[in-house]
Amino acid sequence: MDKKIHVVALAGGVGGAKLADGLSGILEPDCLSVIVNTGDDLKLCGLQICPDLDTVCYTLAGLANPVTGWGRKDETWEVFSEIQKLEGPDWFKLGDHDIAFHLARTNLLDSGLSITETTKILCRKIGVLNSVLPMTDSSVRTIVHTKDGRDLGFQEYFVKENCEPVVTGFTFKGMSHAVPTEAVINAIENADLVVLCPSNPWVSIDPILKLPGLREKIQKKVVVAVSPIIGGKTIKGPAAKMFLELGLLPGTIEVAKHYLDFLSGLVIDAIDHDDADSISAAGIIPLVTGTIMRTKEDRTRLAKETIEFGLKLHPKG
Amino acid sequence: MDKKIHVVALAGGVGGAKLADGLSGILEPDCLSVIVNTGDDLKLCGLQICPDLDTVCYTLAGLANPVTGWGRKDETWEVFSEIQKLEGPDWFKLGDHDIAFHLARTNLLDSGLSITETTKILCRKIGVLNSVLPMTDSSVRTIVHTKDGRDLGFQEYFVKENCEPVVTGFTFKGMSHAVPTEAVINAIENADLVVLCPSNPWVSIDPILKLPGLREKIQKKVVVAVSPIIGGKTIKGPAAKMFLELGLLPGTIEVAKHYLDFLSGLVIDAIDHDDADSISAAGIIPLVTGTIMRTKEDRTRLAKETIEFGLKLHPKG
Repeated sequence: MDKKIHVVALAGGVGGAKLADGLSGILEPDCLSVIVNTGDDLKLCGLQICPDLDTVCYTLAGLANPVTGWGRKDETWEVFSEIQKLEGPDWFKLGDHDIAFHLARTNLLDSGLSITETTKILCRKIGVLNSVLPMTDSSVRTIVHTKDGRDLGFQEYFVKENCEPVVTGFTFKGMSHAVPTEAVINAIENADLVVLCPSNPWVSIDPILKLPGLREKIQKKVVVAVSPIIGGKTIKGPAAKMFLELGLLPGTIEVAKHYLDFLSGLVIDAIDHDDADSISAAGIIPLVTGTIMRTKEDRTRLAKETIEFGLKLHPKG
Repeated sequence: MDKKIHVVALAGGVGGAKLADGLSGILEPDCLSVIVNTGDDLKLCGLQICPDLDTVCYTLAGLANPVTGWGRKDETWEVFSEIQKLEGPDWFKLGDHDIAFHLARTNLLDSGLSITETTKILCRKIGVLNSVLPMTDSSVRTIVHTKDGRDLGFQEYFVKENCEPVVTGFTFKGMSHAVPTEAVINAIENADLVVLCPSNPWVSIDPILKLPGLREKIQKKVVVAVSPIIGGKTIKGPAAKMFLELGLLPGTIEVAKHYLDFLSGLVIDAIDHDDADSISAAGIIPLVTGTIMRTKEDRTRLAKETIEFGLKLHPKG
């Protein structure tokens, strides 16, 4: 495989980070750009926390906790246990090394740098050689609307309420004034292939796609997605539950429909092989393979298969 | 001694905290209010840090590091060593438990509480029963003017530059718009005695005294000070160096002069017994005793002697 193919991956949290890591292993460092959702970001106790950026950065640096998916491996909890003693906010678990990363980030942001510049600096410090690109330097906040009439910040929904409330829709606060960064636009324009990682379509990939002008740029490219839905379920996170609550049958066909206007190919798991015909009928080429990434080898293989698949396809637009 | 005497102590950092701790040990909990300088406060990496408040709170709670004076005992440094790896700001040393305290504080402030309310809550959590009162809820920042023409934030001067620049004066940014809190005013009005702790006159006590209206309140009370200068030197901190750089001979006589308009009595160390006559001549009653606080017993004894001395005096005003 040509290691000099330019790939742009769109990613949210854990699943996205794993495929990005697979891609990172088989491409030249400067050939992979990962555009990351920042709609989940939050300010907590003064710290600027970017959960999806953190997961992608830690995973690419080999620092991620392999058990939880979020946070750092070999983490310590001195600060957190003291916060609990002080009865401070303990719904969002922050390990010591993770806190250091947030403190360093907040310091750089306070000095006037953008989140794009800040992420570039932090990536360099932890040895990430790929471009990890926050989707925007503007403030966009994902709001989850729930059936009981509440509007929750994403982390409030995801962590504090453990994804339990029934969702009725999403708003991306600040989106109409937001702009994708120059780095994001350049990466897409230079890409031979755009890969939608197996991240939540509603709250990880949609915030990126909804950035003014971005979808139009993507539509000109070959785009392949790896389905985050496997056998009607997700490995992690509430994507399947969201499909259901929004009145859609969680499955690869709904994923295909979600990206219908620009998706050329969809990688689905062997367990969903029965869906292949319906996906084809919708005008999207399916690739059936193993999509569960348990090991490093799984990530690499899936990344390789996805690229080779994508390179055979044509832009939808 | 009557434990129900109402005492207000004005304090900065380490020396002030030690005497406040001595006072705390001999007075009923609700009879001691410690008004603390907040001119040294800083925002770092998103954390609201209040070095003098921290030192007073930690000392009163029995959590202070007895070796350094600042920070916590039994501290761990997981976050700090990671910040150093990330090449984040490491000039201001932050231990893990200290960071937890700052995070909890920043969270309370971000929720809309004042620094007075926040400090009250945090004191309760760590078992401090006295009133620890930030001098103001307004933002006041001590600026140190240096001979080489620079204007340094206090922690920049104190920690980053290790008090090395020659000082030419001080500005308290925001002071003209600042107001002492109601709690501060009430504490002074209800006080039987005001004690100026052995803190730096220029940068610990002056910011408190310069709050609009505060000096006039103090002038109606019996005020005794414990000299921060012992044998022409300070136990800790740059007070003696500042006197010298401002053209004044560091000694108890200059301390007496500094507070001449309202000070009834000055407690000086036995080593300075020769100064007693000059202090008397200036209209301030001296008390000569041991003022170095090495042990808990030293703090208690000095506190007791200071109160008993003060109760015999009359307001200057």
